[in-house]
Parts: sequence; C-alpha cells; structure tokens
Amino acid sequence: MRFFSDNTATACPEMLAALADVNRGLARAYGDDEWTMRLDEAFSAFFGTPVRAFAVMTGTAANSLGLATLSPPYGAIFAHHEAHIAVDECGAPGFFSGGAQLALLPGEHGRIQPQTLAAALDAHPRHLHTVQPAALSLTQATELGTVYRAAELTELSAAAHRHGLRVHMDGARLANALVFLGCQPADITWRAGIDVLSFGATKNGALTAEAVVFFDRSLVRDFELRRKRAGHLLSKSRYVAAQLLAYLEGDLWRRNAERTNRLAQQLARAAATRLLHPVEANEVFVQLGDQGKAALRQAGFEFYDWGAETSGQARFVVSWDQPEADVPALCAALSKL
Amino acid sequence: MRFFSDNTATACPEMLAALADVNRGLARAYGDDEWTMRLDEAFSAFFGTPVRAFAVMTGTAANSLGLATLSPPYGAIFAHHEAHIAVDECGAPGFFSGGAQLALLPGEHGRIQPQTLAAALDAHPRHLHTVQPAALSLTQATELGTVYRAAELTELSAAAHRHGLRVHMDGARLANALVFLGCQPADITWRAGIDVLSFGATKNGALTAEAVVFFDRSLVRDFELRRKRAGHLLSKSRYVAAQLLAYLEGDLWRRNAERTNRLAQQLARAAATRLLHPVEANEVFVQLGDQGKAALRQAGFEFYDWGAETSGQARFVVSWDQPEADVPALCAALSKL
Amino acid sequence: MRFFSDNTATACPEMLAALADVNRGLARAYGDDEWTMRLDEAFSAFFGTPVRAFAVMTGTAANSLGLATLSPPYGAIFAHHEAHIAVDECGAPGFFSGGAQLALLPGEHGRIQPQTLAAALDAHPRHLHTVQPAALSLTQATELGTVYRAAELTELSAAAHRHGLRVHMDGARLANALVFLGCQPADITWRAGIDVLSFGATKNGALTAEAVVFFDRSLVRDFELRRKRAGHLLSKSRYVAAQLLAYLEGDLWRRNAERTNRLAQQLARAAATRLLHPVEANEVFVQLGDQGKAALRQAGFEFYDWGAETSGQARFVVSWDQPEADVPALCAALSKL
Amino acid sequence: MRFFSDNTATACPEMLAALADVNRGLARAYGDDEWTMRLDEAFSAFFGTPVRAFAVMTGTAANSLGLATLSPPYGAIFAHHEAHIAVDECGAPGFFSGGAQLALLPGEHGRIQPQTLAAALDAHPRHLHTVQPAALSLTQATELGTVYRAAELTELSAAAHRHGLRVHMDGARLANALVFLGCQPADITWRAGIDVLSFGATKNGALTAEAVVFFDRSLVRDFELRRKRAGHLLSKSRYVAAQLLAYLEGDLWRRNAERTNRLAQQLARAAATRLLHPVEANEVFVQLGDQGKAALRQAGFEFYDWGAETSGQARFVVSWDQPEADVPALCAALSKL
Repeated sequence: MRFFSDNTATACPEMLAALADVNRGLARAYGDDEWTMRLDEAFSAFFGTPVRAFAVMTGTAANSLGLATLSPPYGAIFAHHEAHIAVDECGAPGFFSGGAQLALLPGEHGRIQPQTLAAALDAHPRHLHTVQPAALSLTQATELGTVYRAAELTELSAAAHRHGLRVHMDGARLANALVFLGCQPADITWRAGIDVLSFGATKNGALTAEAVVFFDRSLVRDFELRRKRAGHLLSKSRYVAAQLLAYLEGDLWRRNAERTNRLAQQLARAAATRLLHPVEANEVFVQLGDQGKAALRQAGFEFYDWGAETSGQARFVVSWDQPEADVPALCAALSKL
Repeated sequence: MRFFSDNTATACPEMLAALADVNRGLARAYGDDEWTMRLDEAFSAFFGTPVRAFAVMTGTAANSLGLATLSPPYGAIFAHHEAHIAVDECGAPGFFSGGAQLALLPGEHGRIQPQTLAAALDAHPRHLHTVQPAALSLTQATELGTVYRAAELTELSAAAHRHGLRVHMDGARLANALVFLGCQPADITWRAGIDVLSFGATKNGALTAEAVVFFDRSLVRDFELRRKRAGHLLSKSRYVAAQLLAYLEGDLWRRNAERTNRLAQQLARAAATRLLHPVEANEVFVQLGDQGKAALRQAGFEFYDWGAETSGQARFVVSWDQPEADVPALCAALSKL
Repeated sequence: MRFFSDNTATACPEMLAALADVNRGLARAYGDDEWTMRLDEAFSAFFGTPVRAFAVMTGTAANSLGLATLSPPYGAIFAHHEAHIAVDECGAPGFFSGGAQLALLPGEHGRIQPQTLAAALDAHPRHLHTVQPAALSLTQATELGTVYRAAELTELSAAAHRHGLRVHMDGARLANALVFLGCQPADITWRAGIDVLSFGATKNGALTAEAVVFFDRSLVRDFELRRKRAGHLLSKSRYVAAQLLAYLEGDLWRRNAERTNRLAQQLARAAATRLLHPVEANEVFVQLGDQGKAALRQAGFEFYDWGAETSGQARFVVSWDQPEADVPALCAALSKL
Repeated sequence: MRFFSDNTATACPEMLAALADVNRGLARAYGDDEWTMRLDEAFSAFFGTPVRAFAVMTGTAANSLGLATLSPPYGAIFAHHEAHIAVDECGAPGFFSGGAQLALLPGEHGRIQPQTLAAALDAHPRHLHTVQPAALSLTQATELGTVYRAAELTELSAAAHRHGLRVHMDGARLANALVFLGCQPADITWRAGIDVLSFGATKNGALTAEAVVFFDRSLVRDFELRRKRAGHLLSKSRYVAAQLLAYLEGDLWRRNAERTNRLAQQLARAAATRLLHPVEANEVFVQLGDQGKAALRQAGFEFYDWGAETSGQARFVVSWDQPEADVPALCAALSKL
C-alpha cells in the first residue's frame, strides 16, 4: 500500500476522456488552439476576477517562471526554509531568474509568521551591496500539510507589498487548501494579495498539468517570452489545456481533494498522539520511531522517511486514487503500534 | 485544408491507447516508474547500441538541455543560420548554457557543407578573448525539408571532433529523414559521429513527447541535474514514457513518416517547377508569388508565408493525420496556377 | 618597434600625477568619495547635457554592463559582425544579460549601413518564438579604424528607436573619432541618439579607466546593481575617478588622440596603395603579403596579423606614447617594400 | 577621525612608486607583460608551493570567479551566514556561477564550527531534486574580525573534501590573520586544504589589487575564460601586477597588518568590557548603546552602526594609514563612556 506521494498516482479517467475529446481536427500550434484560448476565461470564472492563465507541465516550471517575472537577477526571494523552491527544485529559481538569492525564513509547521517576515524585511538593507528584496513566495497548502488562513495570507502579502515586494503562491496543493478552508478561490489568492499563482493539478488527478495564473497582468509579456525560452511552451498545447479545463469545469479539483483530505483526517485521528503537524490537507507527518517504521513496512506500507535519518519521522500522502481499503488498514496498523 | 505545420496535428490513437494502458496502479514518481525505466532499453534497441535516453516534453527543451551539457557558458555553438535553435527558440541555448554564443553558418537548402564548417573552425581563434568552439548542432531533417546523407554527417562530425567540439543533432523530424534515406537509425546518428540527439515524436504523432538520447554517456549526470532545475523532469513521467515506447515499439515513427513523406512527394511533383528546395521529408517550399498565394488561400488552403513578406514564398507541411483528400486537392490547385 | 596595440602603451605621466594627488586622507568607499562624486559633473560638462557617469576598469565591463541594462535575457543585440563585443569579449554580453543573442550585421570597413540595419529590423519577427530586438551597439571609432559620421549615427539610431531598440556606443576609441571629425562630443553621442556610452580612456593614456555614461538616466539603478554584482564597483573608487577627471579636465583625451591620429595619417600616406580601410583613427590596416610582413618583422617592426593566416594582411596601431622615430621608420620601410 | 572601513584608506607610497616603476616601455597587453608573468613565481614563493595566481581588481570578482570555477550552476556553496559573499556582494556568486545556491550556516563570532558543517553536509540529500554540495567558502580573517586556527581550517576542509566539495577562502584580510597567528602562509591555506584563495591587498594598502590563487591548478583554464568574459582581464595588467609584487616582495602585507592589528589590540583593551567578539585582526565590534554612539560621534569619531538599528552595536576598523593619534584618542573616549 503506497503512501509515498500524490505524484505516484494515476490520472483521473475524466482526464483521459478530455484528451480523447480534444484529439480531433487540426489545431493551431503553440497555444492558439480553441482549448488553450479558453483558459483565461475558465480561470477567470474560477477566481471571480479577470486573470491571464498559462499552461505548463511541471510545478517547478510554474514556480520558477512565475518567480522570474517577479525578481530581477539581483533580487531576493523570501520563502520558508522548507519550501519546495528551496529544497526540491535543484536551484530552479536561481536558474530562471539569472541568479536571484533565496532568503529563507523559519516558521512552525511550514508556515511563515507575518511578524517573522516583517522583521526580516525591516532588517534587510537596501543599499547596493546586497540583493534587493523582490518577491515573497508562499506555499498553500504548505510542504508540511498545513494551510494558511486567509487573514494570515493577507497580512503576509501586505507586509511584502509595503516593502515593495510582489507575492507568489506555490499552489501545488491549492485544491486541498480550498477544500479544507471551505472558502472561495478568491479569498486565499488575489483578495489576499497574491500577484502570481502556481496552480497545481498534477498531484490531484491530472496527467501532467499546471498553470501559472497572473492576477497582476502587467507581467504577462515577460512571462510568455521566458516560458518559450525555457522550453515550456507546448506546440500541441491543447493536451494540457484539456486537462486544466476538465479539472476546473468538471469540478475534479474539489472532488479529488475532498476525498484525499477526508482520508487524511482518518489517518490523523488514528495517529493523533504521533502527529508532528496539524493535518489540514492530504499529508500526514508522524513520529513513529525506527521500530514503528519497520513494523509498518513489514506490514506492507510504503512511505518516505522524513527529516534526518535517525529522527524516526515519516510522511504519508494520500493520493486521489488511493484504494479505499488502504486507509483503514493503515489506521489499524497505526493503532497497533 | 491545413498545411500550417505538423504541430497542428492530433495525436495517433495508439498514443492515447498507450496513455490509457499505463494509467493504472501507483508508480514511483520522477522517472522511477517501470515505463520510464524501460526507455534506455527501447532506445538502445532502436539505435543498435547502448544509450541513455530521457523524456522531455518539447523540442526546445531537448535541444537546449542537450546543448547545455555540451557547451560551457563561454562556448560557441555552431549551427546553420536557419536552425530552429537560432531562430525559433527565443534564445533558449543562451539561457540554458549560461550565455553560450551561436556561430551561425550559411548553407544551401538548410544544410551546412563540411568545407564551410571546417573553414569556420579553422578561422575561429582559440585565445581567451573569444568564445571557445564547443558544439556543432545539425538538424535532420533540416528546417528546409532536406536531409543530410550519412556521409555528409560523418564528415561534419569528424571536422567538429577534430577541433574538439561535440556534436548535437536536432532530430525533431528524424523519422522523416530515416524513411527518406531508408537507412538504419545508427547510420545517421552515432555511426556518423553524433554525441547527443534530440529525438522528436511530437510532430510525428505523439501528444507531446521528445527524448534526449546520449550516445556519449559521460554527460548524463550533468544533464539530469540541468533537466530537473529547468522544470523538465516530470513527476508522472510514465505518461511521456508511454508515448515514446509506443512510438518506437509500435513502429509508429515509420508508419507516420512514410505517409507524410509520400504525400509530400505528390506535392513535390505537382509543384515541380516552383520548388525552392528538394523535397526530402514532409515539407514543401514553393515560389507562388503573391497572386498564387492569394488564389490558393481563396481555394481554402492554409499555409505559412516563408521568407520576407514580399518574397512570394510559401511553406506546406504534411501532417501524419492529413486528410487523404487534401493532398490531391492541393496538387490540382497548384497545377492550375 | 611595437605597433601591436594601444593597450601595450604606458600611462601618461599626468595620470600617475593624478593618482598621487588623490592619495591623501580617508575617503568614503565604493564611490562616495569626492572625486567619484564629481564624475557626473565632469562628464555632463564634456557632453553638454546632464548625464550619469560610472567608472569601471575595462572596456568589456563597460560594454556588457551597459548592454545588460538595455536588453532583457530574451533580447537580441544588433552589432557589426567584427564588433569587439562579438569577437573579442569571450561572450560577455551573453553572460551579463543572462543569455541575450547577438544579431550580427555585415558592413564595409567596419561600419553598419543604415539600410542594412533597417532591413534586418524589418525582417526580424516579433512573435514569441524568437529573441526580441532590444539594442543596437555601434563602435566609434570602429574596429577597422574608421569613423561614423554624425549623420550616419543619427540615421542608425533613428532606425533602432523606431523599432523600439535602445542604442549603445562602444567608445573605446571615442577620442580618436572626436579628433578626426573635429566635432563636439554631443554631436556623435546623445544628439545622434545614443542612449548609453562606453567611454574609453585606457587605450588613450589611462592606466585602466573606462566609464559608462547614461544619457538615458532611467536605467541607472539597474546598472548600479548589476555593476556591484559583477564585481565592478571599486572600493577605492577614487583611483579610477582620478584618471577620468584628469583625462577630461586636462584635455588629455584630445592631446593624445591628436598625436596618434596624426601619426596614423603619416603611415596611411606611406602605405597608400596598400590600405584595406580608410585611416580615420589610430589604426592602419594594410595588405603586405607574406613577404612584406616578413621583411618588416626582419626590420624590427612588431604588429598583428589580421584576418586569415594566409591573407597577407596586417594591423598597425599607434599608441599615445609611440616613440617619435618609430613612425618615420615604418613609413620608410613600407615605401621600400 | 575615521574608523569606517579599511576601504577608506589611501594606498601606500610604495604602491604608487611601483606604478611609476612599471610605467615604461611598451608591454604586451592582457597579462603577457613581464610583471604579470612574474605573479605565479611571487605567489609560489610566498606560499611555498607551486601555484597559479591571477590579478583582479575587486574582492567580489576574486570571490565569485573563484567560486564559479568550483561550483556548477546546480551547486550549493556553503558559507557562514554573515559571509561577505552572502550579504555584501549583491548576489555575485549566483550571477557568476549561473545560479548556484548559498547554503548558509550559523557560527559564533563569524566562524563555522567543523561539527556544524559536518552535520549540514550529512543532512544535505544528494538526489536530483536539490542543489549539489559543491564548495565551502571560508573567510579568513572573518567578517567579525576573528581568525580561524590552522587546525580548525584543516578540519573544515577535510569535512568538505570528504563530501566531495572543494574549498575556497575569502582572504580579503588574510594578512591580518597571518600576522595574528604568526604562522606561515602555507599553514592556513593549502596545507589546511584550501583549493582556491581570494587574496586581498586593497584593504591593506594597495590601490585596487586582489589575486585569485589556485592551489588546485586543474581549474585554471576555466577560470581564465570566466575572468575574461566577466570583464576582469585587464588590458594594461602591469598596473595591478605591480601592486601585488610590491605587496608581496616588499613585505608590505606584513608591515601594514602588523600596524593595524597592533592598533586594534589597543582599542580592544580600552573597550574590553564592551567587546562583542574577540579582536584578532583590525576590526573591533563593541556594544556602545545609543548614548555611547552619540557621544563618540559628538567627539568626532566616524564608524558604522552594526546589526539592527536599535542594537547599540558599532564597528571600528583600523586602516593601514590610520593617523597615529586616532587610536589613543578613541581609547580615551571609550574609557570615558
């Protein structure tokens, strides 16, 4: 039973159906097809405000292309020290931006506290000798399976804007956050001050489809050239657009995230005394100890170690297509430990 | 009737079937799934030699990641002045390599002549004041629909190697070249001195699937890190791997290229007196004059202008899924001009 | 007798005197000293318009930092194919700009003709697939010892501006051009449409001092951060500022350039039948043949071969401190050939 | 009385004499002159081992060019979180390396402890998803005026080498460290495992002269091309070489550092109860409180605030040419507080 990652999942049948559906007729290449041209409209409806939205294939591309439009080469990008852009993208923000420097902040449960950010921005000098604060990147849901509240995001964005930074959100698991909060997509994005969003669909049921959504549309031309130049403009763009349209218009984002959040809550209850972080999305971090890990692996559960090798910590991720029986089985095994 | 580009085509039904086929079970992410792990074997069989092969989604990514492994930031990359990397990738080689400079060469019908290359390499100084010749990039089939013979490639590669360069091939339309020459894949790749190949499938029937193939395997680790960092390592890699496996193992590359080459030859015969370049793949470049263009467009044919606006030149590309009736219709229309 | 390059010369005694003169007292570092702070004023007086001027140590730094403020990473920089930035700076413009691509133009005697530029700009597409025309770089005096007339520069700049480009001038030998034309500095810079100037002093008598002069002052903040980041902001800036102030305020630029231009004219007359280019600055390019070269070297003259090894061409450069007897000696030797 | 920085000092008279001394005759440009060609020999003698040494003009250039030869674009560079490369070079390491990421470590008094480094290296994953540990950069003397002992450096280098990293030393104030330790230059450089050294002379009496010294000579060709491309190869190289030769061969490094270290010790004694860090070089960090600062400024002392604005901390730096009376005056003023 695999709890490695939501990246190990299949794609929803609706996604394959969508691919089959657009697989007809000659379409203009490089995004001038009817499906790609409908993305702006679909995302604008989703967010309740006019946006520009662009399909890419990976979260790393979405994050780094978005950040490169926000930060000059001599910029500083503020982020949580466990953010995906800091530890899991092989330095992509530095590559795409031409050398911007990450300014990494601490924060319990994967969340930056507004006062931590404000203090860091106040302390950062603005003279020529140092990188210039340019962007704040927030992850929603965070790498540790927690979710920022709208008011926290608003406060963080306001601090950033006050200091002249723009705000990026890594929304690889945005759907899980939306379901958890039960709020409107607008509430935790543009209304909370987000300028550019990496919108993820891959982890939540797509084959391979992400979007970069611009609430601040002045940045779009620069983005488009950077995307092309980075090899992320698809010639047969319809096949990514189709996934994103199905995801939004078929409400797949909600259906899949509701399921994974619900199953993660079951795990959270079973592991209540072992939780390292509140469970607010589809990830569960637990203290198992080496013996606990061994016992679960013996029992057929697959998962990643977390933290240092000797920490005894583990991460379990529920996928949209997690077999229904896996979760009760894991709950039972956890209770037995 | 659309003759814009082979990028405007659909994907083969076999490709969608392959996606459906792999859409089962939890697979390890980031290329550690069973299908991706089979790519090396499949490409090694195709080329008749042990290779390492990596899936990416676009030709620009394949070309630039390949070239970035061959050229240091202070390198010079030699290529035809009409090469895709020079005119159609928004400066991607410069971005991926950290600033390598293109050294562009002339050549009739899109082909560099060996003596042109040799002269350029002989003339290029090696002192510290100039970029250092690092890579030769050859396009097969070329941007003008012509095909290098194996002996030409061998001579070009030998000149490059003699001067310490490594050789990249942009094989976005390699299948068309193979079918035209009727030779083994080995004959125009590693046996002809190619070190790294961009292997295209998208234009010839895939949804979006390319591969970077390393005949010189020493470069692989560097490539893998560059790919990750550029956002071109897919989490759900199986969906690209599946396309490439179907393309190779189902012989789709040959079937589709045979059809488009054959239809292009019909057009070539109909337009014999107007041809700008020999027709050796699936592209036909013709001198139509402004009136000729207008007449064809009036008759419902869609195609790109070529060259300067007033040149009267046009490009027609046959797609793998070109409706059978399109070509005789265009032949008839061409004859009537 | 050395005619290799004006880089092989010493520094004027006035330059060393200027260094000694500022070598007193504690001065604020990084350009906040009294001498550096006077550069804007001195250059504004020189050019007859308010400018911002920044000291750097090399022409490559001046050119590339200037160009990096004018071109985004996805930009195209138009220049003569023999420009220093294209052949003698090891790809520096690509490095500083984050990968901008050079678009190289032909032109007799090292000069781009306005119609050549206009045609290239008209032909360059503006879609997302190609680098975006961003800057024109003109060299004055050119690499072949010729000088653009004010009207030519005006026409070139106008074409560039009309297409949305900004204009850079590589003025490594600007003093020689000014002396040759007998015009005001304004006439061939900002009045002729130049936005950013690399102003050279090293070849004409300084130890190592160049300036980047901004006629378009909106670019200055970006420049300053790029300069710092590239290691070209000097802590003890006064020692470069002192050279530039002496050069401008002591009229050394004129005195030295008058001498080298005058001596070059003597050579030009002696080699009249062998000249490859008009002699308008301090460089003389001649056809000598292999025997002629050998004879001159035998007679003790040192100079660079030019062009291909077998071309029989040679370059002679007169330095500001060229011993007076060298030139008549070379004239005599040339006449004897 | 200025205690801002050793960058605010003049140059030694011996430096100007050296410039005058080499200011004769035509010399080959770009480092092929007799003085530059003697640098390897002079530095080899200084370090007691064969080295390659290259002149540059700034510490930022020396550090970043050195690091760019040690780290690929996807590398991680480990350094103290207060290192000059991290906070005072506007992101230069990211620029020169093509986007390498800094991995910043804590450490009391500006020194990284070997166990801190070892733990960080052990914890850093080596998979494709993260930047690859490539270089360790150590500052000697540190930014906080302290000095690593030879044994500490040896242990740090050994940990780095064991994990496959190479070791860079930022020796902007190496002379002060050597004088403090009373050891051989070899003891705290190559014998302690340093691969590449930024050797500073500017802060200790030169006009503007630094060197990059390679103990590992395999990296030299790459360095030379990067230096040219970054605009740091001087055409009239003799004027920097002359400074470095005078600095080494005239024992100026020792004479000047002995004086500044000695004066700093006087300050340290006077401020003993206020010291924030041990005084081991020419910098003195003290807790003054806002009133203390105001009182000293009132009394005519100029210095930088240190740390956060409200910290009450201050930095005093003694320059090689600090007027003799300044230090007793400051000692008296400190005692009075």
